[in-house]
Amino acid sequence: MGSPLKVGVAGLGTVGASLLRLLDRQREALTARCGRAIEVVAVTARQKGKDRGVDLGRTRWVESPLALAQDPEIEVFVELMGGAGDPAKAAVEAALAAGKSVVTANKALLAAHGVALAERAERHGGALSFEAAVAGGIPVVKALREGLVGNRFSRVFGILNGTCNYILTRMEQEGLSFADCLKDAQRLGYAEADPAFDIEGHDTAQKLAILASLAFGVTPDQDAVSVEGIDTIAPEDLRAADELGYRVKLLGVAVRTANGIEQRVHPTMVPKASAIAQVMGVTNAVAIDGDAVQEVTLVGPGAGGFATASAVVSDLADLARGAVPVPFGLPVKNLAPCEKLPMQRHEGGYYIRLLAVDRPGTAAAIAQHLADANISLESIVQRRPGPAHGGDDPTTAGGPVPVILITYATTEDAVRRALAAVEAAGVIAAKPQLIRIEKA
Amino acid sequence: MGSPLKVGVAGLGTVGASLLRLLDRQREALTARCGRAIEVVAVTARQKGKDRGVDLGRTRWVESPLALAQDPEIEVFVELMGGAGDPAKAAVEAALAAGKSVVTANKALLAAHGVALAERAERHGGALSFEAAVAGGIPVVKALREGLVGNRFSRVFGILNGTCNYILTRMEQEGLSFADCLKDAQRLGYAEADPAFDIEGHDTAQKLAILASLAFGVTPDQDAVSVEGIDTIAPEDLRAADELGYRVKLLGVAVRTANGIEQRVHPTMVPKASAIAQVMGVTNAVAIDGDAVQEVTLVGPGAGGFATASAVVSDLADLARGAVPVPFGLPVKNLAPCEKLPMQRHEGGYYIRLLAVDRPGTAAAIAQHLADANISLESIVQRRPGPAHGGDDPTTAGGPVPVILITYATTEDAVRRALAAVEAAGVIAAKPQLIRIEKA
Repeated sequence: MGSPLKVGVAGLGTVGASLLRLLDRQREALTARCGRAIEVVAVTARQKGKDRGVDLGRTRWVESPLALAQDPEIEVFVELMGGAGDPAKAAVEAALAAGKSVVTANKALLAAHGVALAERAERHGGALSFEAAVAGGIPVVKALREGLVGNRFSRVFGILNGTCNYILTRMEQEGLSFADCLKDAQRLGYAEADPAFDIEGHDTAQKLAILASLAFGVTPDQDAVSVEGIDTIAPEDLRAADELGYRVKLLGVAVRTANGIEQRVHPTMVPKASAIAQVMGVTNAVAIDGDAVQEVTLVGPGAGGFATASAVVSDLADLARGAVPVPFGLPVKNLAPCEKLPMQRHEGGYYIRLLAVDRPGTAAAIAQHLADANISLESIVQRRPGPAHGGDDPTTAGGPVPVILITYATTEDAVRRALAAVEAAGVIAAKPQLIRIEKA
Repeated sequence: MGSPLKVGVAGLGTVGASLLRLLDRQREALTARCGRAIEVVAVTARQKGKDRGVDLGRTRWVESPLALAQDPEIEVFVELMGGAGDPAKAAVEAALAAGKSVVTANKALLAAHGVALAERAERHGGALSFEAAVAGGIPVVKALREGLVGNRFSRVFGILNGTCNYILTRMEQEGLSFADCLKDAQRLGYAEADPAFDIEGHDTAQKLAILASLAFGVTPDQDAVSVEGIDTIAPEDLRAADELGYRVKLLGVAVRTANGIEQRVHPTMVPKASAIAQVMGVTNAVAIDGDAVQEVTLVGPGAGGFATASAVVSDLADLARGAVPVPFGLPVKNLAPCEKLPMQRHEGGYYIRLLAVDRPGTAAAIAQHLADANISLESIVQRRPGPAHGGDDPTTAGGPVPVILITYATTEDAVRRALAAVEAAGVIAAKPQLIRIEKA
C-alpha cells in the first residue's frame, strides 16, 4: 500500500461538498482499488463557517485558492470554483507551476485557456485532468482519450446541456411555449435565474470545444464554435418535427469536413429512432463516430453534485494509480490550431418553416427560388393548422399559411440565399424558421 | 519518444487481421498519443499461407502460440484465439509467467480461469487486459474500472449478445417465429451454424461474469450465473409485451441483493421507454447503476473485427503509456468469492402467459392460487386472439384462451409454487410461459 495521495480542494459548493462526501463513503473501496488512499488534507472556499453537511474537523482550512494551490503538503489541486478568470485561473496556473497535478470541472477555463494550461502542465510534469468538465458523470473524456483511442473519429455530437434538453422535452411532450417551460425550469431549479448562458448555447459550446480537441487533436477553443440557442424554437416546430419523424435537440456537433473541423451548437432535428433522440429531460448523451467502432453512444447525468464528483474521483483515482494523462490526448505541440469554419459552408439537410401569404403563385415563387439555389426538396407540407391548433377557422381563412420544407443535403449558403430571395419577393409574412437536420 | 512497445499476436482471424490493419493505419496517431509506437513484431496462427489482406512481410512468424508467448522479443502477448482451454490457456499462462503483459478478447478463458490468471499476472508484474472480451467496441471495462470508480454499484445489466438481440428485434418488428428468425440470422452471418452458445445465453453469461467481477469485486465465475436462453420466446409474447408497454430483450443482469450478488441471464421485459429497450439489431448496450451517477448507459457495437480490435488497441495504448491496470480492478486477495444465488430467491415482477381451459371457474381458480402464494397482480388480460392472429373463429370457440398476467414484485419461488398449483388444478392447457420483468 502506497502513501496517501494528498489533495487540496478549492470550492465547496454542491460539487465540492459532494466530492468530500463521496471520498469519505468510498474511502475503503478506493484505497483497495487504487493501492493507496485519496486524502483531502486541505480546503478553501469563500465562506468558512457555512454548514455543508460534511465534517471538515480534520481538514486544514487554507485562506485562499492561490495559497492552497501552492500549499507544500498537497500533490493534487482540485479546482471546483468555476469561471474562466481569477481566482480559478491564477490558482490553477500556480498549482501547475509548482509541479502539482490539477483536477478541474471548469469547462469555461479550459475552453478559453486550455492550451496554455496544458503547456504549463507538460512543462512542469503535472497532470491537468477534467473528466468532470464535460457531460458530468458520463466518462466521455476517458472514452475519447483512452477507450476509443484506436479510432479515427469523423464526428462527435451530443446533448451537453440538461437545462435545454429539459425545456425541449417539456415543450414537445406538453405542447408548451419556450417561455413557459423556461419559467417552470427556473422554478424547479433546472435553470439559472439568468438562463442566457445555457439557453443561448454557450455552455454547450464550451463543452464541445473540449470534446473536439480530444477527438480531433485540435486546440480547444470556444471561439471556434458557431453558436445558436433554443429560444427561437416554437411548439409548432416540435409538432412538425414529430409529424416528419424527427425530434429537436440542442446539439453540440464537431465534425471532420474537407475544410477542417466544423464545430457548431444549434437546435437540431434528429431522427426519432436514433439513440440521441431518446434522451429526455436533464439527461446528457454523447455519440462518437469512429472508423473502427462506427458509433458508440454514452448516456447519463450531465450535472448534479454527486455525478460531477464521480468524474472528479475518476481523475483522482488515475493520479493515485500513478497515471499522468496528457490533457488533450496529444502533446501541445501536436495539437492543430483550431479555425472557426463559417456556417455558410455547412452542408446538410434543413427544415424550413415559412408563413406564406395566401395568394396565387406563392408556392410557385417559393419553389422557384429554392430551385434557383439548386436546393432539392425531400418534402413539402402546406396546410392550415387544424382546429385544435387554432386553424380552420373562417376568421383566419385568407391569412398566412404555414409551409414546411425539408431539403436534401445542401449548403447553408444556398439556403440563406434562397430564403433572402423568398423574403424579397414578398411572399412570406414572417421571418423564416430554419433548423438544421443531423443524421444520427 | 520512447522505444516501441513490442507486441506478439496469436490468432489471425477476423479480429486479429483487423487489429493488424488498425494498428497500421493508425500508426502515426497512436505513436503521438502514446508517446511511443505500438509495433507487432511477431505473429502466429493456424494457417501460415492464408491471405488475410494484411502485409506480414516484415513480421516474424512464430510456429506456435506457446512459442510466441515465450518469445524474448515481445513485451505484450495478444491472445485472439479464443476458447477456455489450450492452446489459449497455456499460452496466456506462459506469457504471464514470463513477466509479459497479456491482452485478450477471450471471455471464455476469463469466465473460467480469470482469478488464477489475474493472480499469475500480479505475481509476475504483468497486466492482464480484456476490454475486448465484453461488449466488443464499447469501452465498458474501462468505464467500470476507472471512469466510474467512485461509485458503489447496485446493478449492471445489458444486452451483450448481438445475435439474440437481432433475432428478438426481427421477431418483434416482423411478427416472425424464433425458428424463422434464427434461420435468417444464420443465412446473413449473424448467427453461428451451431447457435446454441449464443441463443442459450452462455455467451452473455461469460461476459456478465466479467462485468460482475469489475462492478462488485467478486471473482469472475461463469458457474455463478443462472442462465436461460431465448428459444422459448413466442411471437405472442412480444405482441403482449408491446401492448403492455414492454419489450423483450435477452439481458445479463448482475445485481447487489441482501443475499449477495445475483447474476442471471434470461429473456427480460423492459419498459419500452427505457434506454435499453431502444437498442435494436446486433447492437449491444450496458447500463450501470451507481450511487453517485444513478445510471450511465453505453451503447455500441458488440462484435465485428474492427470494433473488437478497437478495444484491443485501447488496452495496448494503456500498456504503451506505462499503465499496468489491475485485471479485475482489485488485487485478487480482495476479490470476494462468488456464490451462485438460487433463482428461487429472485425478487421482481413477472409476466405470465397461460393457456386457460375455457370453462366456468377457471379464472377464479388461477386467481386463487396466485393469491394463496401472496402474489398481487398489476394487470390481467384474458381474451381470445383477434381474427388476424387466428382467433375469434367459431371453430376455436370453446378452446383454450390465453391469459396474460403481470405481477407486482414477488419471489420466483412464490410464482413457481402458484403455477405448479395451477397446473395441478387442471385449468391450463399448456406449460405456462414466464418472463421476468426488470426495472430499467
